[in-house]
Amino acid sequence: MTAGLRIHAVKITPVAFRDPALLNAVGVHEPYALRAIVEVDTGEGLVGLGETYADEGHLRRLRAAADALIGMDVYGLGAMHRKVAEVLSSDNGVGGSGLTGMITTSSAVDRVFSPFEVACLDLQGKAAGRPVSDLLGGAVRESVPFSAYLFYKWAAHPGQEPDDWGAALDPEAVVAQARRMISEYGFTAIKLKGGVRPPAEEVEAVLALRDAFPDVPLRLDPNAAWSVETSVEVARRLEGVLEYLEDPTPELDGMAQVARQTPIPLATNMCVVAFEHLAPAVEQGSVQVVLSDHHYWGGLHRSKLLSGICDNFAMGLSMHSNSHLGISLAAMTHLAAATPNLTYACDTHWPWKTEEVVEPGALTFTDGSVRVPQGPGLGVELDHDALARLHEQYLKCGLRNRDDTGYMQRIDPHYEKKTPRW
Amino acid sequence: MTAGLRIHAVKITPVAFRDPALLNAVGVHEPYALRAIVEVDTGEGLVGLGETYADEGHLRRLRAAADALIGMDVYGLGAMHRKVAEVLSSDNGVGGSGLTGMITTSSAVDRVFSPFEVACLDLQGKAAGRPVSDLLGGAVRESVPFSAYLFYKWAAHPGQEPDDWGAALDPEAVVAQARRMISEYGFTAIKLKGGVRPPAEEVEAVLALRDAFPDVPLRLDPNAAWSVETSVEVARRLEGVLEYLEDPTPELDGMAQVARQTPIPLATNMCVVAFEHLAPAVEQGSVQVVLSDHHYWGGLHRSKLLSGICDNFAMGLSMHSNSHLGISLAAMTHLAAATPNLTYACDTHWPWKTEEVVEPGALTFTDGSVRVPQGPGLGVELDHDALARLHEQYLKCGLRNRDDTGYMQRIDPHYEKKTPRW
Repeated sequence: MTAGLRIHAVKITPVAFRDPALLNAVGVHEPYALRAIVEVDTGEGLVGLGETYADEGHLRRLRAAADALIGMDVYGLGAMHRKVAEVLSSDNGVGGSGLTGMITTSSAVDRVFSPFEVACLDLQGKAAGRPVSDLLGGAVRESVPFSAYLFYKWAAHPGQEPDDWGAALDPEAVVAQARRMISEYGFTAIKLKGGVRPPAEEVEAVLALRDAFPDVPLRLDPNAAWSVETSVEVARRLEGVLEYLEDPTPELDGMAQVARQTPIPLATNMCVVAFEHLAPAVEQGSVQVVLSDHHYWGGLHRSKLLSGICDNFAMGLSMHSNSHLGISLAAMTHLAAATPNLTYACDTHWPWKTEEVVEPGALTFTDGSVRVPQGPGLGVELDHDALARLHEQYLKCGLRNRDDTGYMQRIDPHYEKKTPRW
Repeated sequence: MTAGLRIHAVKITPVAFRDPALLNAVGVHEPYALRAIVEVDTGEGLVGLGETYADEGHLRRLRAAADALIGMDVYGLGAMHRKVAEVLSSDNGVGGSGLTGMITTSSAVDRVFSPFEVACLDLQGKAAGRPVSDLLGGAVRESVPFSAYLFYKWAAHPGQEPDDWGAALDPEAVVAQARRMISEYGFTAIKLKGGVRPPAEEVEAVLALRDAFPDVPLRLDPNAAWSVETSVEVARRLEGVLEYLEDPTPELDGMAQVARQTPIPLATNMCVVAFEHLAPAVEQGSVQVVLSDHHYWGGLHRSKLLSGICDNFAMGLSMHSNSHLGISLAAMTHLAAATPNLTYACDTHWPWKTEEVVEPGALTFTDGSVRVPQGPGLGVELDHDALARLHEQYLKCGLRNRDDTGYMQRIDPHYEKKTPRW
């Protein structure tokens, strides 16, 4: 009996890791991406790991939740979710979504609960000697395909040396970026983060990718930078070219209007980001593919619930990513492996990252896929020296809340945040 | 590591246990109820238990599935579901639903998969030293409330001595049955199986129950015996009296018509019995409460998915029961305990049963509730002598397929099966 498997202590460590100047619809990635590493300790030699956002509001909520979870059974996930809801009941939920103002309507309870749930599943798996995927119904695939996640980007952050990817601001450079990423990782699907250049240029970039990679599924994600009219016009030009078009325009209603005017499936990680959005999305026919993300859908079990809902309400399923480290990649891989209807290659920012907190070896890309870690739990171990280093970097870098728009405006005072922009 | 936890052998034992002459919309319960007991053996000293229907078509499918599952990992539930679907792909699914023709549109794959899934969760729990509820997110309640399940009934099966409940064919006898059942078990909700007497008489019975038990939630379930018009008329008379009205009329469309004309929530275990029914039920607004049943919803994990769908699409959740033994009651209790939005008292035929296959002690009613078994896995153990006895009874009794209508017609040759009858 492992009857005594209770939460004895929780350690939450914010870290910062270097991030290239990747452009998006609301600005540009800052020089460091922030994450919080959650260690749940049972006091009996077992520690479970979770990873989440590190914006200040989120850190404050994580710490309040952690205090309340002490003493709880690591199998009591339903009770923990209730406890987190209770702790946050007087919280207005504002700020700290960790997603630079692009995804603001996700559930604060689900965001805060998520890393604790993942850490408890890591513990359950370690206690049972089984990988986390087994706790989710078992892997139905041995490895999980990810997509090449292309970005328009600057060669460098202002005042810094160029990174080794260089600038990508036109179709040729986007194709070159794809070539390198595919040759290094073997990806079998491509996603271009759009909403950066005028729509006609982004159409050209996608058509250039199609020419260069005739058989690779392509996606474009302008993060709601377009009006309904622009979205329909872009869709018309990319019919038969895109596997799906992600969040061309804001809100369920706008998406539904676009969906009625194009045969291209519309995907989202902006207008359906919480359970309460599902029924209205189904009713309006707003989206054909939902991008799951355990970081804001309330962990792995609740992400499986999302998957089951998509499966039964005629929506496809893909997976969203923010800049993340290895704990998250392990959790994403276990979840994806145990989700039969996750048939699209998942997103990951992995190739853009040059620093890490987990020991090397457990997570490797072969033919664009990550093999499901076979060890107990998540199958990854913390590199404590690396954790200390990245925490030190967090303390020194001065960044405390992700703010792609503010950073862009410090570089270009004329920059305006506009949705839709075109 | 319990890495070697694989299915080494499966034993499927049909059993028969005595059942009173309980009346319903399609006839009368036969003198014996049939169940199949599934034992999944890992060959390493651990055996997991499941319980399901025992109609011949179902037994044949169970055996075909069992053969195909040998060698599979007991954590590989997603892979097992796929395997069962593969095995049954050339099966027309007809017959063997185990539900006497009342619920024919459930999924054969989910029905067949269910007892194996439950047995594998029993094994996972035993291996980890944790109750099955912990594998489902943990119990959010220590005990699970059930309802007093009243039946119109004859005093005896023709040619047999009266059972000790006696006849119940009018409101007074129904109230007397409720009094005894509540005094013995402490139930805090009452369900009357209707569709047996003319609707006006059943309304009188419900009103008599309301008088006798002013504060106890009441439900009436005529198993689709009524037209839309009759249903609306009955609902009008029972407004403010019923907690919910269960399956007054057949099909999603008929239920939606009734739902539009009454404020009483409509519940179902007839028109929503498979995942494919959920989207149309939501679209049409057919039901306000779904009665889950892990025996045909594909086991405990898939029943949790059903729960999550109800939670997110504005439908309440209750639980259905057929005549069952202790393995099923244990599974129902673990599932209900780990399902936060299961807020109605569950159905059970338990009080009508005088024979059992599990060792006594693990399952007891206090104040109408069953305490969640605390032992590893389901927390119940087979009584092998009792199993042998009830299997012998199965062999001798001659019943091979549940047929309430055929039995009634042998007693009353003029009896006709009609839906709706009134």
